[in-house]
Amino acid sequence: MRYAKEVLKGNQLAGSRLIRLLEEGDPQGIKELKVLYPHTGKAFVLGITGPPGVGKSTILDRLISEFRKRGMKVGVVAVDPSSPISGGAILGDRLRMGRHAGDGGVFVRSIATRGHLGGLSKATKEAFLVLDAMGFDIIFIETVGVGQDEVAVRDFVHTTAVVSMPGMGDEVQSMKAGLLEIGNIYVVNKADLPGAEEVRQHLQALNQSRPMNAGGWRPPVIMTAAAKNEGIAELADAFMSHRQHLAHQGRLADTLFEHELRFFRQIVQVLAVEKIFDQVSELPAYIDLIKSLKERKIDPYSAAERLIKRLKCKVI
Amino acid sequence: MRYAKEVLKGNQLAGSRLIRLLEEGDPQGIKELKVLYPHTGKAFVLGITGPPGVGKSTILDRLISEFRKRGMKVGVVAVDPSSPISGGAILGDRLRMGRHAGDGGVFVRSIATRGHLGGLSKATKEAFLVLDAMGFDIIFIETVGVGQDEVAVRDFVHTTAVVSMPGMGDEVQSMKAGLLEIGNIYVVNKADLPGAEEVRQHLQALNQSRPMNAGGWRPPVIMTAAAKNEGIAELADAFMSHRQHLAHQGRLADTLFEHELRFFRQIVQVLAVEKIFDQVSELPAYIDLIKSLKERKIDPYSAAERLIKRLKCKVI
Repeated sequence: MRYAKEVLKGNQLAGSRLIRLLEEGDPQGIKELKVLYPHTGKAFVLGITGPPGVGKSTILDRLISEFRKRGMKVGVVAVDPSSPISGGAILGDRLRMGRHAGDGGVFVRSIATRGHLGGLSKATKEAFLVLDAMGFDIIFIETVGVGQDEVAVRDFVHTTAVVSMPGMGDEVQSMKAGLLEIGNIYVVNKADLPGAEEVRQHLQALNQSRPMNAGGWRPPVIMTAAAKNEGIAELADAFMSHRQHLAHQGRLADTLFEHELRFFRQIVQVLAVEKIFDQVSELPAYIDLIKSLKERKIDPYSAAERLIKRLKCKVI
Repeated sequence: MRYAKEVLKGNQLAGSRLIRLLEEGDPQGIKELKVLYPHTGKAFVLGITGPPGVGKSTILDRLISEFRKRGMKVGVVAVDPSSPISGGAILGDRLRMGRHAGDGGVFVRSIATRGHLGGLSKATKEAFLVLDAMGFDIIFIETVGVGQDEVAVRDFVHTTAVVSMPGMGDEVQSMKAGLLEIGNIYVVNKADLPGAEEVRQHLQALNQSRPMNAGGWRPPVIMTAAAKNEGIAELADAFMSHRQHLAHQGRLADTLFEHELRFFRQIVQVLAVEKIFDQVSELPAYIDLIKSLKERKIDPYSAAERLIKRLKCKVI
């Protein structure tokens, strides 16, 4: 073990290096993570989401300062979709986080996904576990907020804040369904701009029109002007209230376990398919099947079903 | 079979409805697709990719007209990441495609992914097979060009054009690696703006600095001003040259088969894991494992490995 012991002490260099190993798929990384695992499960995991331009990064930046003031250690896993095209350049605004660079109680790590499908959630999950083992009280999972990536990561978090702002017009309309579904807290940022009150009322009305969430949580609407550091303490309070609500319901650990179970199934899926193809790839029946597939005599569904039908698995 | 026969005649309403069924995961959809499958494998599949704002939609719009002039039927599968937040609203510019609405030789279908991981590539693949069976000569796969989605879809296409434009500066730098890797054709759009010649020279130089692609294809650099319909015929020619190149090498069918094989493995993976969990979920050893996982006595990796180690599979 090169890193585990240092990671448990909160050593950021060791944490960074271990996350790097995990991103690269180095088996040593997984070995270390297994050692760390019993020390995880303590962090409170937060997500901030919303359309581009609403000020998510500024809110995050201010929230970090606020939670630090309250004596909490804060980690951030920034998910970089690592498009072969954008190369992550769109994430330039994250550089602003640099102003926490001198603070040992803050740790920001970008995860690049290197184009593996499902690689995103695996790499993010692993980085998050390292930060959890490092003893961060709060971990933010930050996504760029477009597409699959966001959906993949959503399952990680205990509490999600959905950010909107005045003047979004139709965009707010189209946010409706998603908002009500995934947000535990609604934020109206740039609340010093005209129209903020309308947005608040609109969200409030949407809020009231729906039956309460399971467990009786009604998402509060928090007004912020993050650039002026206004409303940030209230937002931090809202996060902590939701945490308390979850703890009360015994759902703080459950959220984590549900995710653990899904992660476990993902790993089983990958390992099982490797094992199955290892065991069948030399069989004449399998070779024939692939030949038929190549000649388009059989479709991939039927081919897969035929293989599965003849596949017998048991646990010994 | 409600739709297969009509789909084979090119009936767009039937095509739309079948794609809807497939998106919804209706087993009837798969049944119909199996009937269609022997009639697929003929379309030439194209991708247009590049950072936001370079004019991909306009190029696509113009290319459709160009290929129509050449007597070809053109289908478009537009991949909508269906973020719970954006709700696909960012794709408003696709509405422009509406100007082909009266043309029976053009068919545009948006695929929403409904948040399933891996659902994107499955739904896109299936829609593409339906369009292929409908007899479209050319099928464009259009993505929003951010993150995982794009990577997932990239494998579908025979030929990818990567679009850049003047004035991108650093962004072009960061595009380099990805460009050279995935582009079969480089497009400099808005070539009437200052700096276009520099971009062309830059791409040309990058192009020359690398060994030729497998098979001896050197990506051409095509200058377009899509808004003025300039360079579009040359771009269409470049696509057809690459098609001929692939055909010459016998790689037109191979590209498709490689994808088919990957698709087959994906389906096997899903079905296999269902079967495995079906067969083991009642076993005391499995129930114990999940209990340990819940109590964080075992990490998900070790749990998965333990299950897989005891798993015996054979093809009978």
